[in-house]
Amino acid sequence: MRAGIVAIGSELIRYRRIDTNSSFLSAELERLGHGVDSIVSVGDHEAEIRWVLGRMLSRYRLVIATGGLGPTEDDRTRAAVARLLRRRLVRDPELLELIRRRLRHLPDAARRYNLERQAEVIRGAELLANPAGTAPGQWIRRGGRHLILLPGVPGELRAIWDSALKSRLPVEPAQPVARLRTVGLAESDVDLRLRELERRFRDLEITTLAQRGQVDVFVRRRRGALGPVLRRARALLAPALFAEGDAELGETVGRLLRERRLQLAVAESCSGGCLARMITAVAGASDYFAGGVVAYANRVKQEVLGVSDRRLEASGAVSGPVAAEMAKGVRARLGTDLALAITGVAGPGGGSSAKPVGLVYIALDHSGGTQVEELRLRGARREIQQQSALYALRLLWHHLQERT
Amino acid sequence: MRAGIVAIGSELIRYRRIDTNSSFLSAELERLGHGVDSIVSVGDHEAEIRWVLGRMLSRYRLVIATGGLGPTEDDRTRAAVARLLRRRLVRDPELLELIRRRLRHLPDAARRYNLERQAEVIRGAELLANPAGTAPGQWIRRGGRHLILLPGVPGELRAIWDSALKSRLPVEPAQPVARLRTVGLAESDVDLRLRELERRFRDLEITTLAQRGQVDVFVRRRRGALGPVLRRARALLAPALFAEGDAELGETVGRLLRERRLQLAVAESCSGGCLARMITAVAGASDYFAGGVVAYANRVKQEVLGVSDRRLEASGAVSGPVAAEMAKGVRARLGTDLALAITGVAGPGGGSSAKPVGLVYIALDHSGGTQVEELRLRGARREIQQQSALYALRLLWHHLQERT
Repeated sequence: MRAGIVAIGSELIRYRRIDTNSSFLSAELERLGHGVDSIVSVGDHEAEIRWVLGRMLSRYRLVIATGGLGPTEDDRTRAAVARLLRRRLVRDPELLELIRRRLRHLPDAARRYNLERQAEVIRGAELLANPAGTAPGQWIRRGGRHLILLPGVPGELRAIWDSALKSRLPVEPAQPVARLRTVGLAESDVDLRLRELERRFRDLEITTLAQRGQVDVFVRRRRGALGPVLRRARALLAPALFAEGDAELGETVGRLLRERRLQLAVAESCSGGCLARMITAVAGASDYFAGGVVAYANRVKQEVLGVSDRRLEASGAVSGPVAAEMAKGVRARLGTDLALAITGVAGPGGGSSAKPVGLVYIALDHSGGTQVEELRLRGARREIQQQSALYALRLLWHHLQERT
Repeated sequence: MRAGIVAIGSELIRYRRIDTNSSFLSAELERLGHGVDSIVSVGDHEAEIRWVLGRMLSRYRLVIATGGLGPTEDDRTRAAVARLLRRRLVRDPELLELIRRRLRHLPDAARRYNLERQAEVIRGAELLANPAGTAPGQWIRRGGRHLILLPGVPGELRAIWDSALKSRLPVEPAQPVARLRTVGLAESDVDLRLRELERRFRDLEITTLAQRGQVDVFVRRRRGALGPVLRRARALLAPALFAEGDAELGETVGRLLRERRLQLAVAESCSGGCLARMITAVAGASDYFAGGVVAYANRVKQEVLGVSDRRLEASGAVSGPVAAEMAKGVRARLGTDLALAITGVAGPGGGSSAKPVGLVYIALDHSGGTQVEELRLRGARREIQQQSALYALRLLWHHLQERT
C-alpha cells in the first residue's frame, strides 16, 4: 500500500525536536512491503492538522499520524480527525476508568489535566491498547483506506506497534535492500566504483549517504535477487567496506580484537575522548579495551604518557613524532598489545599557517613497530574531532586485517 | 507570511538521513517573523514532488523546497516545478559555463553527469548564486506567492541563505521566544513549577522538551514583553537553570572554570570518555581542562589512578569509595584544582541484583574534600553513559556556584 506519515507537534517544527518516530515507522512499513511516499510534520493547530490529514488521506491508502493524543490543550489530533471525517467523538467508559486508575498516584493529575479528553474515541475506531502509557492508538477504516493514530511518545508508539499493529497490517512482497558501510572513501569515489554495477544490473536502485568520513551504500533491486549484486559490490568496495547492516566501525574492530584476544589502549589530545567514546559505546568493550588517557595539556603528555620534552620542543605537540610517542607511551603505561594515539588542531582557534586547523596525526603502536598517518580534515571542531577518531579506528582496522 | 518547507530526497524517507535543513530554515524563518506551519519530506519521484509542491503552494504564501537540484537522474525538482507551474525549463548559458569551469578538475565529470541538466532554470526564476557549489538557488514568484528552490547540501543551502536570501526576504514582527535550559529536573516537575507563570500571564505559550536529563523550556508570548515572564521563570527554575539560549552545560561550566582560573581533570570508567568528550567539545577547553584517564580495566584504576587493591576488593569497582579514590587519584596525578570521576554499570550486561545496570557513582574532589553521589539511571547503554557524564558536570557546576 502507498503510505504517508504525519507527525503532529509544534516542537517538531519550531524547536528542532528530531522526529525519530517517522523514521522508525518508515523503516517498519518498508519491511512489510509498504512504500512511504511522504512524511509531514505539522504543528498543534487543529485547522492545519485537518488540512494535512485530508490531503494525505486523499492520496494514500494508509496514513499513520503520531502525536497530539495527550491530555493537554495542545493535543488536538482527536478533534481534528473527528471534524475531518465528520464522525463524533465518544467517551469510552472503560478507557476513562483505565486512565483514572493509572493516574491515581498523581494527586493533582485530575486538576492538571482534562482526563476525560484522553478517553475520547473517534466513533467507529478500533482501539489499540497502549502497554506503555495511557492514550491508546486508534485505527479508523473508511472506504478501503486506513488512518491510524498513535501517541507521540516514542516508547509508547513502539509498544503499540509491536503488540497491536505489526502483525495485523497487511503484508506485501518487500524489495530486498542491503546496506554496505565504507570508511575513508569520498562519495564521488564510491559512485564511480559502483558505476559498473549499474551497467551490469539494470533494475538496481543505489543510494549513497555520506557523513563524516563514512559513506553508506543502500542497494535495492526491483526484480532480481540481491546476491550476485552484493558479491560484485563487495569486491568493488573491498578495502573500505567495514560492515553490512547497521554495525559501526567500533563494532567491527571490537570483534576482531576479541577474536584475537588483543588488548587496546588509546591516547588522545585534540579528539578529547572521542575515540574512547567510540570504542566504549560498544557493549562488552571491556573484553578488549583497557582504557585511555586524554592528554589535553602538554604536561599530561609528558608526565602520564612519557612524551619527551625534547620531542615536544623539536617537533611541537601536533606532529608525527609526538603522536608516535603518545601511542608508545600509553601502550607501555597500560601494558596492552596495541595502542592508538591522536594529536592535532581541532579549531576553531589554535591554527597557524604551518599547522592549520584540521591538521591531525594519528599513530598505531604494536609489537612490530609504529605507524603514523597525517590527516588534513575539514569541518567544524566536532567534525574534526570525530573524523580523527574514526580514521584512527580505521588505521587499527587495516592493521588487524593484515594480521590474519 | 505563512510558510511551508519541502525537503526532497528519498534518503530522507527511506534511509533515516536526518533532515537538518528544514530545522535550520524553520528557525531562520521564525526569526524573520514567518511562522512555518508544516514541513514535508518527499522522495525523488517527480509526480510525488509535484503533488506535494502543488498542495503547499495552494496553502502557503512562501514555500521553500530543498534538494533535487543536482546533476544526476535522481534530481527531479526542476522538472517537477516546471511541469507544475507550466513553465519551460531554459538552459542558462552563463550558468553552464560556470559549472563547466568548476568541474574542470574532475576529468570524468562530463561523462558521469549530465551537466547541462544543472544549468536548467525555470523560466522567469531569479537565480541565487551558490558560493559553495554549482547548483544555484531559484526564486520563483507567482501571484503574490514565493517558491524558493535550494540545493540539499547543507553547506550550500546555508551559504545561499546567508549571501542571497536572508536579507532580501520580507521581515514581519516576530514573537519573541526564549529558551531556558535546565538539568536534573523531570519534565513533569518543570511543568508544575511553571504552572504559576501560565496563571499570571495569560498570553504565554510554553513548550518543554526533555532529553537525557535535560529539560529545555521555550517561552513565547503573543502580545506582552518577555522580560517580566523571564524574571519569574528564572526564579522558579533557579537551581536547575544552567543557560538561556543554546549553550550546553559544558560551556556554562567551562566559563566558570576559566573565570576562576581553575584546572580540571577527569577519571572515567563506565562513561568511557563521554565526560571528556562533553568538556572538549567546547572550543578553548584547553584553558581549563588538563586531561583525563579512561580507566576501563581495574588494572588501570590501580596503576594509573592509584586506587587501592583493598578498596577495590572491599567495595567493588562500582562503589562510592572507588569513585572517590578515582577522583583523588586523577587530581593528584594531573595536578589540578578539581577532579571528577565516574564509575558504574552501563549495561546491557554486567549488572547484578546488588549492582544493577544504571547504578552509577560520581565523585568530585577538590581542596576542601570529596563529594560522592549515587545515581540510578535508566535507558540504553549510551543513554546511561551520557547521563552519567551530564550529572558529573552538574555536580561540578553546583560546586562552582557555591564557591562564589
